[in-house]
Amino acid sequence: MFSPLIEDLIRALRCLPGVGPKSAQRMAMYLLEKDRDAAGLLASSLQQAVEKVGRCTRCRTLTEQDVCALCNNSRRDHTMLCVVETPADVLAIEQAGNYHGLYFVLHGHLSPIDGVGPADIGLDLLGERLSENGEEHGGAAIRELIIATNPTVEGEATAQFIAERARAKGVAVSRIAHGVPIGGELEYIDGGTLAHAFNSRTVL
Amino acid sequence: MFSPLIEDLIRALRCLPGVGPKSAQRMAMYLLEKDRDAAGLLASSLQQAVEKVGRCTRCRTLTEQDVCALCNNSRRDHTMLCVVETPADVLAIEQAGNYHGLYFVLHGHLSPIDGVGPADIGLDLLGERLSENGEEHGGAAIRELIIATNPTVEGEATAQFIAERARAKGVAVSRIAHGVPIGGELEYIDGGTLAHAFNSRTVL
Repeated sequence: MFSPLIEDLIRALRCLPGVGPKSAQRMAMYLLEKDRDAAGLLASSLQQAVEKVGRCTRCRTLTEQDVCALCNNSRRDHTMLCVVETPADVLAIEQAGNYHGLYFVLHGHLSPIDGVGPADIGLDLLGERLSENGEEHGGAAIRELIIATNPTVEGEATAQFIAERARAKGVAVSRIAHGVPIGGELEYIDGGTLAHAFNSRTVL
Repeated sequence: MFSPLIEDLIRALRCLPGVGPKSAQRMAMYLLEKDRDAAGLLASSLQQAVEKVGRCTRCRTLTEQDVCALCNNSRRDHTMLCVVETPADVLAIEQAGNYHGLYFVLHGHLSPIDGVGPADIGLDLLGERLSENGEEHGGAAIRELIIATNPTVEGEATAQFIAERARAKGVAVSRIAHGVPIGGELEYIDGGTLAHAFNSRTVL
């Protein structure tokens, strides 16, 4: 019904997560009718980001710099390393605000059935980081590895795999706690989480 | 928290209607981590559309062609013209499938308080269309003008304004019916619509 270029734009907008045909059409109309400046800016931001954003050579998070701002920050605790699955997890932990160490981003989890092995999630680079004595980067060697992969089957398997390798290098390994969320009501918590919360109960 | 280019991208994505900070972040992460090809394609589609899409010289709908496919279609009824507020309204009516005439897109409605006058919504062009005898465009002259502006205060005022001008040119003018939607339940219809449905009742 629309002209070819508009149809192309609507189709391209549908690649965004959570955007169906109706939203894509609404977005295209909005951009073309009301806000062409924003559309041009979005086009150039996308182009720039696609061309220039790569991974931090230290922690593999998304950045256009060689080493990201967190890894370069000398005021953070360079003896602690938190392993997460995605860059968004880094943001979530930073917003919680009580962790001041460094991160390591896997960009996924081990999944042999999909052909995702240790090299694909950067475990060779993680191995190197754990072996460093820290002098060449002006920090201390890593003393504790905190594993914050998701509490899914694959996330747990990945956590176990990384924990074994880290222990073999003499690094202390911990896993973030799982259980009933603070402010959550027991009534609405799923059975798996409740069972885990009972099994992992701590002495008062 | 993210690097500057990623922050720019997240900010640019927030210009899309219905996209807040959390969705924009999720979209940026998705595009950069999972689907860079789609991101590149979206960037170029946006660029192309912003540069090339203009308005049809006959009906003012959005198109990159000089005259849009609907206005160029000789199998449509060139004696009927339906006035709508936006290109999305054209799509909605086309999807209903029982109107086979042409359209005229206002891109808004009269709104003196916002400085939107007759010229801003293309009423001079509409006037010319209504005065044409139709020979120079290979069609017939327009015999009926169907006004399908939104049933809002501004839409109604615009409809009245256009209707007066069209009647002065000897063109028959009609307004699409407003009332209880087909399949709607009276219980859930707002009072304004119900009052209108009673006032506009038809003889059975």
